[in-house]
Amino acid sequence: MQNVMDETNRGFMDRRAANHIPLTPLSFIARIAAIYPDREAVVYHDRRYSWQQTYERCVKLADALIKAGLKKGEVVTIMCPNTPEMVEAHFGVAMAGGVLNTMNTRLDTDTISYILDHAETRFLLTDTAFSDQMAKALAQADNNQITVIDIIDKFDEESRDGARLGALDYEAFIATGSADYDWQMPEDEWDAMALNYTSGTSGKPKGVVYHHRGAYLMAMGTIPDWGLPRHPRYLYIVPLFHCNGWGHAWMMAIVAGTIICCRKIAADNIFNLIKAHKVTHFGGAPIVLSLLVNAPEEVRFTPDWPVQVMTAGAPPPAAILEKVEAMGLTVTQVYGLTETYGHLSHCAWNEDWDGLDFTEQARIKARQGVNMAHTEAIQVLDQETSEHVPWDGETMGEVMFRSNCIMKGYHKNPDATEEALGEGYFKSGDLAVCHPNGYIEIKDRLKDIIISGGENISSVEVEGVLYRFPGVAFAAVVAKPDEKWGETPCAFLEMKAGETATQEEVIAFCREHLAGFKCPKTVMFTEIPKTSTGKLQKFKLRALLDS
Amino acid sequence: MQNVMDETNRGFMDRRAANHIPLTPLSFIARIAAIYPDREAVVYHDRRYSWQQTYERCVKLADALIKAGLKKGEVVTIMCPNTPEMVEAHFGVAMAGGVLNTMNTRLDTDTISYILDHAETRFLLTDTAFSDQMAKALAQADNNQITVIDIIDKFDEESRDGARLGALDYEAFIATGSADYDWQMPEDEWDAMALNYTSGTSGKPKGVVYHHRGAYLMAMGTIPDWGLPRHPRYLYIVPLFHCNGWGHAWMMAIVAGTIICCRKIAADNIFNLIKAHKVTHFGGAPIVLSLLVNAPEEVRFTPDWPVQVMTAGAPPPAAILEKVEAMGLTVTQVYGLTETYGHLSHCAWNEDWDGLDFTEQARIKARQGVNMAHTEAIQVLDQETSEHVPWDGETMGEVMFRSNCIMKGYHKNPDATEEALGEGYFKSGDLAVCHPNGYIEIKDRLKDIIISGGENISSVEVEGVLYRFPGVAFAAVVAKPDEKWGETPCAFLEMKAGETATQEEVIAFCREHLAGFKCPKTVMFTEIPKTSTGKLQKFKLRALLDS
Repeated sequence: MQNVMDETNRGFMDRRAANHIPLTPLSFIARIAAIYPDREAVVYHDRRYSWQQTYERCVKLADALIKAGLKKGEVVTIMCPNTPEMVEAHFGVAMAGGVLNTMNTRLDTDTISYILDHAETRFLLTDTAFSDQMAKALAQADNNQITVIDIIDKFDEESRDGARLGALDYEAFIATGSADYDWQMPEDEWDAMALNYTSGTSGKPKGVVYHHRGAYLMAMGTIPDWGLPRHPRYLYIVPLFHCNGWGHAWMMAIVAGTIICCRKIAADNIFNLIKAHKVTHFGGAPIVLSLLVNAPEEVRFTPDWPVQVMTAGAPPPAAILEKVEAMGLTVTQVYGLTETYGHLSHCAWNEDWDGLDFTEQARIKARQGVNMAHTEAIQVLDQETSEHVPWDGETMGEVMFRSNCIMKGYHKNPDATEEALGEGYFKSGDLAVCHPNGYIEIKDRLKDIIISGGENISSVEVEGVLYRFPGVAFAAVVAKPDEKWGETPCAFLEMKAGETATQEEVIAFCREHLAGFKCPKTVMFTEIPKTSTGKLQKFKLRALLDS
Repeated sequence: MQNVMDETNRGFMDRRAANHIPLTPLSFIARIAAIYPDREAVVYHDRRYSWQQTYERCVKLADALIKAGLKKGEVVTIMCPNTPEMVEAHFGVAMAGGVLNTMNTRLDTDTISYILDHAETRFLLTDTAFSDQMAKALAQADNNQITVIDIIDKFDEESRDGARLGALDYEAFIATGSADYDWQMPEDEWDAMALNYTSGTSGKPKGVVYHHRGAYLMAMGTIPDWGLPRHPRYLYIVPLFHCNGWGHAWMMAIVAGTIICCRKIAADNIFNLIKAHKVTHFGGAPIVLSLLVNAPEEVRFTPDWPVQVMTAGAPPPAAILEKVEAMGLTVTQVYGLTETYGHLSHCAWNEDWDGLDFTEQARIKARQGVNMAHTEAIQVLDQETSEHVPWDGETMGEVMFRSNCIMKGYHKNPDATEEALGEGYFKSGDLAVCHPNGYIEIKDRLKDIIISGGENISSVEVEGVLYRFPGVAFAAVVAKPDEKWGETPCAFLEMKAGETATQEEVIAFCREHLAGFKCPKTVMFTEIPKTSTGKLQKFKLRALLDS
């Protein structure tokens, strides 16, 4: 439709250098280093960098990459826990026009070499703690254009003792760059900035491409919803290789926060860091919260200041929530996927719920909630009608997102991109219900639903019952092909050390708590394969059933 | 330069509906009304609207405008103090695809009719307190396509008694719209959203056009720098007709704040509202702060909770700052222009200054500071060399901005647009120095500088001395053409009631405090013309000298 005002002014009101600047997190660090040059930016043991120093190290990294031959849009892969180098790579690589590919440090050789090839990695920054694994992957990869830079962490024994794979280490490499390098803004905010491979719960990892605009808006939009103040003291537990650490490094460069690096995810280390650095904010999966509440008494520490915790990956169980909050930590659940830069929804708290009893509060906090400021819409659409499911807290549909913080697409994979993004929404593959107040609650992965005799069975519901069976450590339910029913639920159980059970006992227990058709027909006792972030790999269990 | 990653994925990673949504503040209100439907959004006397109600009233306004014939990009003018209608217009007009033109309620008839013609106003929402003035302006305007809607404020005597100019009042008008109207997002975030005429300190007002993207980023970017928490209680003193009230209505729709409307800018009213509504944040010119500290004892109120105040328009004088902060209000100075949606810079506080004595703190707080999160760069460029001035706190240059929160241009004025935006920066027309820490401090308007015998004289510096002369209420110094010196300073003084002085006394006083060439050669005693926001209109004084 014609726009009267803009037609009138046609020809002289286009975007210009003065009034249209590509949105990018690089603007954040340039600004904050100028305003708060001496404020502490990154801390790791006795390594302490101010924002000015961090900025300069990022610029030097960028210049070093350019001098060593990096071209615009080429990939720099980093395999590194949360150390200062990892934070710096999140700015420096983009300052050189490169695309940052963070790699999960627990990946297997095959996957690493697959990614090095698929990403066409040009530079590899790799912590020497992982040298054995990485050397094998490099030998296996077809890619022979990789320049390797070693990151040596003097505070980590494995890193200190690890083999050197490259000609230069990180410090020597950035010393070849100049802090005066005139780094370049992206030409277009839609330019690729990061490449994150999916964790592979369902086979070959896909390369998710992030753009600068999304990274900017994700960082900016999280601030109001988390109520983030100026100068937070942020403990970086969430691995930066996981959705770029939910964008929180970029966000800290908006509010001039201090990033405290957490390499070792162990209760004593985390409590020590919280205490020593007066941490005010951190993020972590429920498994991290579980670590904290199950830590021995002498390790635990209850801060006498408020601490905000963001959790994601799974709903925090009520029992853990209760203990965590008793420690003075306020937990907010957020939800998102690799394709969405991390969190797009959050369980926004409503003061009306302050008076509810703890059980009810925990039930609410287990929900994934509503769209964050950087997300235009979350829909839960019926699989068949493509209509929004009723807000009844019962009817399941697929969660769909529309947001500026959704990937450009899957690297070199137009078909999967079209499938994920082609219908106006990003299809999450997660099944949820929508409660009467509009809060969504994830019930299952779409591919984990079991259809038996025409009835949908939520594997999550069955697993919920199985977890209540005495001695169960992990439970996973997948569909087993069945001539009569199409599919039937098959339960895999990993028992706690020293605990045993029989198939008959388990099925009998399920019959007490579930409709008959939902009860597993088969129960197998085995160690359940998990990803590095602790997600159960159901596709491997399905493969067991097929073989 | 070619981008390797984006070339590889050419053809299937373009912007799509799923991952590219135009940035607009309309997204804020839609989201927050869904999450916090029952939270208080707007309060004015006994009128209290929740976010759901406010949202619905905005949608109804949009639908009513569409039904009454508004076309995309046409102008809706509003002449209204800070009441709920004014807040609603800030969302509802854009929801209809219209462009909101807010009009200063103190404008003269000539200027009002000029704007109605120049903006090609299609709808006029006008508070009946201003009916006399508006009726004259309408009669005088050539524009005969205006549909007038009256806003009747039952809490304001003048409004209650004012003549009706339209066939419908606001409530009847929005009742013709439906809350179910499927309002439209802008097609492009660069679409015009608002039209704000400059205040006319230098002649004919120019029509500044804002785009949706800037409005979004302004609101979002102010949050981290102001440290705005969730659910602030915001007293709206800054007129919404002034740079759309610095974008704060839009911002409140991000954080689910409560807007308390302040129609009458008087000390007793402001103190009463702060007390009654437990206000946590407000903005206002230093003249508002002055009102508060000079209020009679029995009117004053010192809140026992923290209150954050944003001030702009002029540096807050130390004496006022001291008294305001003693009341428990924390003041931050921000700086911007109509062309920049309001504040682009702020005097960001640094904890290192906490230990300074009050005088030194006040000196710092009088500076305009550094770029806010939504501003890419502020430069202070030498007029002749176009180089950045030294960071010495002494050398003056023109302030230049680069930001996503800069206007598209001046409506129907390509020449002025090119002059303001054509060189990569927006030229502010303000002269500033840059302190060693990079904080800027405005010294004068470019056109107010006086060049006498080749020497630059800052009118602000001379006025600073004149304000210290006993009995002076207002002082303005402008250039007087002079055959010998080119220009000489001419002082206009408005004395306080009952106070008098002679030219000789004033000049003698100046000689004690200023270099000889900076002293006024002429002193005139007169009432100084001011804009509705209290700015002295030097162009009218210059006209006096020319005539």
